[in-house]
Amino acid sequence: MTVHLVGAGPGDPDLITVRGARLLERADVVVYDRLAAPLLCLVGREAELIDVGKEAGGPAASQDEINAILVDRGRRHDCVVRLKGGDPFVFARGGEETAVLAKSGVPVEVVPGISSALGAPALSGIPLTLRGVSQSFTVVSGHEDPGQVPAERWNALAALGGTLVVLMGAGRIGAVARRLVGAGLPATTPVAALRQASLPGGEVIESCLGEIGSLPHSPPTTFVIGEVVRHRVAVEEPVTAAALFA
Amino acid sequence: MTVHLVGAGPGDPDLITVRGARLLERADVVVYDRLAAPLLCLVGREAELIDVGKEAGGPAASQDEINAILVDRGRRHDCVVRLKGGDPFVFARGGEETAVLAKSGVPVEVVPGISSALGAPALSGIPLTLRGVSQSFTVVSGHEDPGQVPAERWNALAALGGTLVVLMGAGRIGAVARRLVGAGLPATTPVAALRQASLPGGEVIESCLGEIGSLPHSPPTTFVIGEVVRHRVAVEEPVTAAALFA
Repeated sequence: MTVHLVGAGPGDPDLITVRGARLLERADVVVYDRLAAPLLCLVGREAELIDVGKEAGGPAASQDEINAILVDRGRRHDCVVRLKGGDPFVFARGGEETAVLAKSGVPVEVVPGISSALGAPALSGIPLTLRGVSQSFTVVSGHEDPGQVPAERWNALAALGGTLVVLMGAGRIGAVARRLVGAGLPATTPVAALRQASLPGGEVIESCLGEIGSLPHSPPTTFVIGEVVRHRVAVEEPVTAAALFA
Repeated sequence: MTVHLVGAGPGDPDLITVRGARLLERADVVVYDRLAAPLLCLVGREAELIDVGKEAGGPAASQDEINAILVDRGRRHDCVVRLKGGDPFVFARGGEETAVLAKSGVPVEVVPGISSALGAPALSGIPLTLRGVSQSFTVVSGHEDPGQVPAERWNALAALGGTLVVLMGAGRIGAVARRLVGAGLPATTPVAALRQASLPGGEVIESCLGEIGSLPHSPPTTFVIGEVVRHRVAVEEPVTAAALFA
């Protein structure tokens, strides 16, 4: 009995790891979030599928319910996969779930996935770091109310001088941009909005801090803020399993 | 003709993406760095292998030479894979290589990989973000001489309050730690040194900013700095292709 926390990656079934794909194929139970749903084509026929429906806006099942399901199934089955969009340890409560499982005596393995923080820029041709342009990148969540974040953190983000990636920020990117400008970043700082970067219909919008908030955004969108956006290279769209959904 | 910049992930061949593995299988040419060498078991028999030997300490082939090889092979072959350890757009000159290829009219695709910045902590049971503990993470490179980094950037890193990940820092983590303490982080701030997290013989050393510099480190080591280190969960070692190398 083991619960495997598996990162699904940015959505395209070809962008999960080889290990993640193999675990899905032989899983007895798969407990998944909505963003990971495109990966269900990889699951073996006999598996029990449990949709815990977490999405921007809050979980369909509560975290306590999810924890209870994982402990219960983990005790009763050989191979349980907890499938999460992106990477399980980046804004995904993977730390909480592994802690609960470990306390309950259920062995747990973590299989990392391509976080949208890295995957969406890569698939869109935007390097997160670039010599002479950006020597670091910082990943934050747009779920936090920007008004509740202390001013010193905005000042620190503005002073850092690297690339900033905002996950789950479709609803609040305008407020985030205003705080960053208030903390000293120029309103002309380039911003790219990357929507469903790995899936058909995905799109890239280039804008700037002063204007990004006045454009419409819908989840899942990854925002990249910084000079690296100007160095975006035209890349080929990957010909992957995603074409099946087109 | 296309050059595919493929992220190899942290070292274990099972932690490359499904798409990356398929490209390696059918590649005409594979141009690889030393950290990506364990992945060569996935390459088809007919492929030309070109070792450009980049490692901590500098490239064996110069970047200009690598660019020239990629443009040349990209023009002459259907499927060229440029295989890089981790993710191609995180401290890996992927942005430079894609720009050169695009300027030369060679189509280029980017296949993201598991960066050690995320993969090493995940495989070691350390969540990068955790509710109530850390709301962001920042990734920097230890290749930069800490003395050349402006004081305001150290101050910003210290003020940010999130998790800090240092890649390629085995040689300079002591100097990095001193700057961070100088910028206001407590010397007791926990640090985990994660060496070859996905491979047999990998190890985790837990220490703190005040002491990490006095311990021996060898590349490749990923350092995680911040309170999340105290929330490390004991996870199972993955049973993956890496066992073949044991």
